[in-house]
Amino acid sequence: MGGWAIAVHGGAGVDPRLPEERQAAAKGLLARCLEIGADSLRSGAMAIDVVEMLVRELETDPFFNSGRGSALTARGTVEMEASIMNGRDRRCGAVSGITTVKNPVSLARRVMEFSPHSYLAFQGAEDFAIEQGVELVENDYFITDENLTILKLAKEANAILFDYRVAADTCSASVGPAMSFDTGIQMNGLPISVYAPETVGCVVVDSTGGCAAATSTGGLMNKKCGRIGDSPLIGAGTYACDLCAISCTGEGEAIIRATLARDVAAIMEYKGLALQEAINYAIKERLDGGKAGVIAVSKDGEVAYGFNSNGMFRGCATEDGFMEVGIWE
Amino acid sequence: MGGWAIAVHGGAGVDPRLPEERQAAAKGLLARCLEIGADSLRSGAMAIDVVEMLVRELETDPFFNSGRGSALTARGTVEMEASIMNGRDRRCGAVSGITTVKNPVSLARRVMEFSPHSYLAFQGAEDFAIEQGVELVENDYFITDENLTILKLAKEANAILFDYRVAADTCSASVGPAMSFDTGIQMNGLPISVYAPETVGCVVVDSTGGCAAATSTGGLMNKKCGRIGDSPLIGAGTYACDLCAISCTGEGEAIIRATLARDVAAIMEYKGLALQEAINYAIKERLDGGKAGVIAVSKDGEVAYGFNSNGMFRGCATEDGFMEVGIWE
Repeated sequence: MGGWAIAVHGGAGVDPRLPEERQAAAKGLLARCLEIGADSLRSGAMAIDVVEMLVRELETDPFFNSGRGSALTARGTVEMEASIMNGRDRRCGAVSGITTVKNPVSLARRVMEFSPHSYLAFQGAEDFAIEQGVELVENDYFITDENLTILKLAKEANAILFDYRVAADTCSASVGPAMSFDTGIQMNGLPISVYAPETVGCVVVDSTGGCAAATSTGGLMNKKCGRIGDSPLIGAGTYACDLCAISCTGEGEAIIRATLARDVAAIMEYKGLALQEAINYAIKERLDGGKAGVIAVSKDGEVAYGFNSNGMFRGCATEDGFMEVGIWE
Repeated sequence: MGGWAIAVHGGAGVDPRLPEERQAAAKGLLARCLEIGADSLRSGAMAIDVVEMLVRELETDPFFNSGRGSALTARGTVEMEASIMNGRDRRCGAVSGITTVKNPVSLARRVMEFSPHSYLAFQGAEDFAIEQGVELVENDYFITDENLTILKLAKEANAILFDYRVAADTCSASVGPAMSFDTGIQMNGLPISVYAPETVGCVVVDSTGGCAAATSTGGLMNKKCGRIGDSPLIGAGTYACDLCAISCTGEGEAIIRATLARDVAAIMEYKGLALQEAINYAIKERLDGGKAGVIAVSKDGEVAYGFNSNGMFRGCATEDGFMEVGIWE
């Protein structure tokens, strides 16, 4: 037992027809993050610093649905959210409705450290970002051509899209790199199907046994302005304590009702299950049919994940030299 | 076992020098709510309808810090938040940053029932309120003269105030009905002291054993615009499942880190403790010195509360004819 460990994710729910080159790109990005994190942890970095650094990396790369490359609201804008939590003292910070901050996870960290509050949203969060002097960009910076195409299709179908779902009838043909397939699932009467890219997250246990978690997202494609999902919510998308750290991704509404991240930790703490067992239990018992994925580390240097979705972009690395990235089961 | 039960709260943390007539007014309001709820439950009303109805009553009365009478932001405006959760299916709805909706709890219920999302905030929530046709008022409707006085004092002291705290040096003299006393506690280097009024909440188990919870607040006095507290957060301020329903109040940031409402239920579910034991355990073990109060009911018709603050405005009623309201231990 012991030693550092990292896990990263780029979302749960992946189109099985995702082109090989996109799969390779996803795995390459996750592996690059793991290598950066491993280098830092070998140099004695703290868990909270590493989760922030790796989520920044994922936000800055347009591949997944956070920071640049975020999903678009019904109005064609980007409204991002993020949260971060330090397990040792359970301090946390969260932001929602972010439109100009290049790295929302770093704003969440500043809320944690320099604000009297834990959670700031919309204009108040933007005002705090200016006070704090974090890097700002125009909202256009976050918007990719690919996402504009998907939004157009979503609007034609009058569908609100989960992180990884797009109206099935809009996507029978490939829309460039955005691929989908019909799940047979309906949402408020509209057919939906799987779509990448996705929410990102990172969990780390450092060499001192300190755990931390961070999650960042653009939310749902064609979401209502003002929608808050699970990613910024402590206990839903993100949780860390002295035992473990967890980041979740998938159907936000199901994750919120499940208090999924806290439940993984609570099942360890109150029910006495081990990390992997706690993840399996939470995914099986708490999601009421919702689809989600979880990554987690424990203070003892364990790393684990679980998902009931069709695939999950994820990777992990541990102090003993083990590293893997994967998409499918 | 069995039978319906209700609990209501008007916040944790009360000035011990609160004038008798204010104490009587608080108890009168809580008792009126219990009577309205008891009448409905005797007529077979469902838990979810009763929690909404009683929180509306508390929002409409200016006494506590929700709806009319809400605490003011640093800009002198009101930004309200609320959440509601139905235990049977764990469906939930939440709103933050509400400025024109007369009863935020009813908007949260509409988010739960008529929105594809669980949580809407700020302009997007206001847009949804207009779509849904809920009753709207000017922001001035929510602002009381008493709260304007307190905000002025808070600004002079450059203090952000907890729901029930105000900078000690601003309140050595009485400021009308707003009373305070020095706690010796500091927040970001500023002295703070106890102040009422407070966040409101309600939990109900109906005669079918269905549980529901709702919480509503104006948040902190002199808070930053955009601050989100625990009240709208599922698992923090509000939680309901098939076992029990919980509403919390107090130091929002401590409640968020504790995932306090979910933890009471998780301690029952995973640790096997009874309702009152679970509340006691959560308050003792999860708050890291933060001050909070909890009300809860179980599917078996039990009702319980707990707090580590100086008093809590609360009351409960059960099917066997028991009713009580109280402020102190």
